[in-house]
Amino acid sequence: MRDVAAAAGVSLKTVSRVVNGESFVRPDTAERVRDAIARLGFQRNDLARTLRGGGRTRSIGLIIEDVANPFYSQIARGVEDVARAGGRLVISGSSDEDPARELLLIRSLCERRVDGLLIVPSQTGDPRRRAELIAGTPAVFLDRPADDPAADTVLIDNLGGARTAVDHLLAHGHRRIACLVDLPEIFTARQRHQGYLEALAAHGVQADPALVRTGRHDVRGAGHAMTELLALPDPPTAVFAGNNLLTVGALRAIGAAGTRTALVGFDDVELADLLATPVTVIAHEPADMGRQAAELLEGRIRGDTGPPARILLPTRLVARGSGEIPPG
Amino acid sequence: MRDVAAAAGVSLKTVSRVVNGESFVRPDTAERVRDAIARLGFQRNDLARTLRGGGRTRSIGLIIEDVANPFYSQIARGVEDVARAGGRLVISGSSDEDPARELLLIRSLCERRVDGLLIVPSQTGDPRRRAELIAGTPAVFLDRPADDPAADTVLIDNLGGARTAVDHLLAHGHRRIACLVDLPEIFTARQRHQGYLEALAAHGVQADPALVRTGRHDVRGAGHAMTELLALPDPPTAVFAGNNLLTVGALRAIGAAGTRTALVGFDDVELADLLATPVTVIAHEPADMGRQAAELLEGRIRGDTGPPARILLPTRLVARGSGEIPPG
Repeated sequence: MRDVAAAAGVSLKTVSRVVNGESFVRPDTAERVRDAIARLGFQRNDLARTLRGGGRTRSIGLIIEDVANPFYSQIARGVEDVARAGGRLVISGSSDEDPARELLLIRSLCERRVDGLLIVPSQTGDPRRRAELIAGTPAVFLDRPADDPAADTVLIDNLGGARTAVDHLLAHGHRRIACLVDLPEIFTARQRHQGYLEALAAHGVQADPALVRTGRHDVRGAGHAMTELLALPDPPTAVFAGNNLLTVGALRAIGAAGTRTALVGFDDVELADLLATPVTVIAHEPADMGRQAAELLEGRIRGDTGPPARILLPTRLVARGSGEIPPG
Repeated sequence: MRDVAAAAGVSLKTVSRVVNGESFVRPDTAERVRDAIARLGFQRNDLARTLRGGGRTRSIGLIIEDVANPFYSQIARGVEDVARAGGRLVISGSSDEDPARELLLIRSLCERRVDGLLIVPSQTGDPRRRAELIAGTPAVFLDRPADDPAADTVLIDNLGGARTAVDHLLAHGHRRIACLVDLPEIFTARQRHQGYLEALAAHGVQADPALVRTGRHDVRGAGHAMTELLALPDPPTAVFAGNNLLTVGALRAIGAAGTRTALVGFDDVELADLLATPVTVIAHEPADMGRQAAELLEGRIRGDTGPPARILLPTRLVARGSGEIPPG
């Protein structure tokens, strides 16, 4: 606010009048103030919030990776239900895991003075730049932490869920268990990979790096990786698929190869129960993650100044058949 | 605008100054004008648009039935891609097929002065009330028409797709073909039911009302209906399922009953190709519907005053197995 006043060459009181839409400011002066605010960009939101008391636009911003992915559209639905109860609309955007796109979305949302932000943070950008843009806007992170110990965060128990998945395959006699996970930059992918390794270690099974394929970000990539794995001289008898898209890709590859490869997938997938071999999954409730994050945000918007919350949502194994196939 | 001036007891020029955030208005006068605008509710948007020249908020509103339904989340993704290219954010809301909820969303979006609206209109409300609220905001309707000949509309070829589905089952020898469709108020449900009847008539097959179940709006309702149909003394040998949720419900019921009932579903469903009997569907591109509607809206926001567009998107039959099962 001082920066704006200095840049526009006016008093703090004048800036306050312009931002609050009060009268008794000459049009050319008001124009200078607005120019200064626009030049200073992201500070505008902070300024407006401070001066207006916040909570005025009755809207929240939601940044996810891709609304077309059922995992994220279920999150969006949970968020919307809570926002609706609080009388707020949801302005949403897909970052496509692109940090520049994420920063642009945060900036656009803050410029629109949303009452708060819900963010699935992209994982390759600079957390400080994100934090600078968010500035004074209440924000809650979900699905992945934001490298900010002061931030509210809602996560799934990725490590525990992955361990449960691989424990289950080990209990059914598998020792050559493949692992498909997403980009190593992504927190959830690292956690699930770690859970896979911990489960093997806990059972005294030596991990074989040839069976681990990281950096698979879509159905097609997972399919290629699984096809390669099944073509190994000593192929895996089971696979842990690290998310819903990777599960679909692995299932397609296993179907095409015609093998009886066991599979446990992280995330439930629609129609999993109706497949030729119904799919065993590590299930959780994405809509519930959205709801809990939105409720935390609602509290912050209303002035809750308690210590940062870190909610860890449970997962559960749903055994349907594919995870109970014995080693061939 | 005249109404606001009259209600506030001020001149048109004064209203203009307040709405434009210009100076030289006494605070108490400005307050009176803002009160009048708030009291007059939905006209505020129209007023602000007229005075400001529109297009200022760089946002569009999207009203769908339920973002958690993959059909709608794919539409949302297509909309977002076009909005992004135009530098606009998407403010979205789920109407849940509730006309009061829809009106509230339209009102909220117009109060936020979105540059335009994309609406999947609910089908049980009063189209005139919707039209009144939308007033001067550019709007494009998608998936269903809005009873407004002046409105741009993007639809799927529901009638043709349904005819193709039932033609396909008839060509495989079926004569007792069941039909599951959504609430009869919903345009797409009526069109698909009509397509079913037309296909039967074109083949000289007498329609049996006992085989038609309308008003099925979710997976569970479709499952119950299908279970009842399979328990008839003379059960159907095939079923046409009128949307993605009804397809899932019918598949569950057929699986539970253990019958070899043929099925063609409207809308593609994820993993349809991996089911025990892969599912034959009438496929189309929801993301493309979202893109085309958003492009029409972008044109209107930029001042396109051409005649109303009515785009009909094609469907295609994807034969995967379930639609090619012969009569038992």
